[in-house]
Amino acid sequence: GFATAAQSNKVTIGLIPADGIGREVIPAARQVLESLPKSESSPRFEFIHLDAGFEHFQKHGVALPEETLARLRGECQGALFGAVSSPSHKVAGYSSPIVALRKHLDLYANVRPVASVAGSGQKQLDMLIIRENTECLYIKQERIETDANGLKVAYADRKISEYASRRAGQMAFNMALMRDKLRSSIPASERLWQGKPKVTIVHKSNVLSITDGLWRETVRGVKENNAALYAGVDMDEQLVDSMVYRMFREPEAFDVVVAPNLYGDIISDGAAALVGSLGLVPSANVGDNFVVGEPVHGSAPDIAGQQKANPIAAIRSAGLLLEHMGYSGDAARIYQAVDGVLREGLIKTPDLGGKSTTQEVTDAVCKRL
Amino acid sequence: GFATAAQSNKVTIGLIPADGIGREVIPAARQVLESLPKSESSPRFEFIHLDAGFEHFQKHGVALPEETLARLRGECQGALFGAVSSPSHKVAGYSSPIVALRKHLDLYANVRPVASVAGSGQKQLDMLIIRENTECLYIKQERIETDANGLKVAYADRKISEYASRRAGQMAFNMALMRDKLRSSIPASERLWQGKPKVTIVHKSNVLSITDGLWRETVRGVKENNAALYAGVDMDEQLVDSMVYRMFREPEAFDVVVAPNLYGDIISDGAAALVGSLGLVPSANVGDNFVVGEPVHGSAPDIAGQQKANPIAAIRSAGLLLEHMGYSGDAARIYQAVDGVLREGLIKTPDLGGKSTTQEVTDAVCKRL
Ligand SMILES: CC(C)[C@H](C(=O)O)[C@@H](O)C(=O)O
Ligand SMILES: CC(C)[C@H](C(=O)O)[C@@H](O)C(=O)O
Repeated sequence: GFATAAQSNKVTIGLIPADGIGREVIPAARQVLESLPKSESSPRFEFIHLDAGFEHFQKHGVALPEETLARLRGECQGALFGAVSSPSHKVAGYSSPIVALRKHLDLYANVRPVASVAGSGQKQLDMLIIRENTECLYIKQERIETDANGLKVAYADRKISEYASRRAGQMAFNMALMRDKLRSSIPASERLWQGKPKVTIVHKSNVLSITDGLWRETVRGVKENNAALYAGVDMDEQLVDSMVYRMFREPEAFDVVVAPNLYGDIISDGAAALVGSLGLVPSANVGDNFVVGEPVHGSAPDIAGQQKANPIAAIRSAGLLLEHMGYSGDAARIYQAVDGVLREGLIKTPDLGGKSTTQEVTDAVCKRL
Repeated sequence: GFATAAQSNKVTIGLIPADGIGREVIPAARQVLESLPKSESSPRFEFIHLDAGFEHFQKHGVALPEETLARLRGECQGALFGAVSSPSHKVAGYSSPIVALRKHLDLYANVRPVASVAGSGQKQLDMLIIRENTECLYIKQERIETDANGLKVAYADRKISEYASRRAGQMAFNMALMRDKLRSSIPASERLWQGKPKVTIVHKSNVLSITDGLWRETVRGVKENNAALYAGVDMDEQLVDSMVYRMFREPEAFDVVVAPNLYGDIISDGAAALVGSLGLVPSANVGDNFVVGEPVHGSAPDIAGQQKANPIAAIRSAGLLLEHMGYSGDAARIYQAVDGVLREGLIKTPDLGGKSTTQEVTDAVCKRL
């Protein structure tokens, strides 16, 4: 992290619930972290509460306060972000705080695992989406003009750099190796993915031959320039439209999928539909010095404050946070506890067809840690 | 059309098979058009064969020959386009001929109906996607630079204009009214969509506040500025990531969906997965003066030349071509014949789990006309 832990194993985590159900699922994730059994090697957590979000903007005129950034940098080793509400119309001066956070903390890869739980009745898949997290259409360079007829014409810049594409590509190939290693420790019959690890590069270079051409070449180059290291990892590619089609037809055909920012955003919501709910899918915004866990779902204002939100995406995001901070044993405990609850299928929130509250699901996970 | 028919009811259609299975499915569509029963009001077809495609580019250095464009403009009232192969790496001087065709003929709306056939076992949905067809990331304005460290940085312009957004929006609201009128002629129990017609606007204005903000405002303005005309049409909106999620969870929640070019491309492939095969989904590239029917699928080089291609997308595209040229009775005959074959479920190509050839499916459709 940016801040070096003063005592060994002391980990300070910034909690940024932000808007809507973020305020219910972040406390749930915190409870799970606090309930982890203590061992010699496991971290001792400290939490600090930090502000951000659309509501904060409405009250104070700023969506991501300077203080939040400063304390993340100065005091924290990682953070958990809840969800942010999006005004559907343009609001002067407002800009998404999660997009800003990714940029300011240089969290260059958004890691989004989407996997079914054996025995849970979900469609079988075990996919890891690596979403480039800093550029593409997210650089917020837009302008508007008026044409000769007095009509408006707007432009946005889409940026694809060799630098960012390579970092995303490296993350994809490294995670493919890591997943392969983890898989080898579980019985072959229980492995969903049976073959060699594989990285699928998503692009639209038939239309965007220069930007997506650079993306494609650079990610391919990661393997080609490290032939020995990645010899065991297969590589293929999909046009983004075809990717969405194939993902729904044969989700079991994908292992690691690496995509530019916006395609990654779309694909991960699509993959979430396959496992039954956005409320199950976690992510980690990963940089070299910092990690921010973040459920993939939004702030869901329609159910906020009613104990109906599924806390599992946030709880799994806390697991990802630990994993990417190097505490993979504690992360695995969280994943297994969640899988146990889902496999049993008794305690579930309304998005999964159940009647349990956010708190009941959280307690059920804690009991299994 | 651009060319005025010399004799009434004489319709000249340009056939552009282009690459791969385009060469099997376009003849299939032609056979269906020629097999339509002749009535007083139905068109007499003339067909002219026109070149385009990646293979043509490889042989002759041009993907969309001047002659093809000139004859479409000078002699045809409409056209059918097959499919084009995409080189996965950048090929100097090559650019997609279908993208060029849309632009040169000002085919501003890509109309993509995706509907299940009652009794066919498909997931129930009845959706019409209107894809803006001339701008967004398809304007082919890209550039590449080198940064201070000698690394490449590429940019693409994404254009959203009030002019194009309004035309796409008008098409969406007009089609919503049209569909509602058509539905009123079928028994209520057989209607998949029961409510008021609805237009769903897809955007990502939480990130692209200026470009997608303009898109959203302009499409909303179509209804607001024609309040009386569109009073009967509901309007809502979805962020593109959420749209892909919701489409898979509740496809029955959508009637007409209107999207900027690239989102429309992605969404229509996703919708195709819901009805079981890309080989079923047609489109029409519609302008004020010209229509080009085009199956949504690609050139599928892996199965080309083997009589394995599903001709239904191309056949339905011929129906859409007739519909948008004003021959809705003949179009309806084609749709019903196709639905009959699908409902019976006996004669089907391998993408639908069958063993029939392209020719057998085509013959089965012709028999039911
Ligand atoms: C809230 C929004 C800006 C964000 C994004 O598009 O990245 C969200 O959809 C996500 O996936 O984290
Ligand atoms: C071939 C390609 C350029 C095209 C597109 O992206 O428009 C295709 O995917 C389509 O949907 O017609």
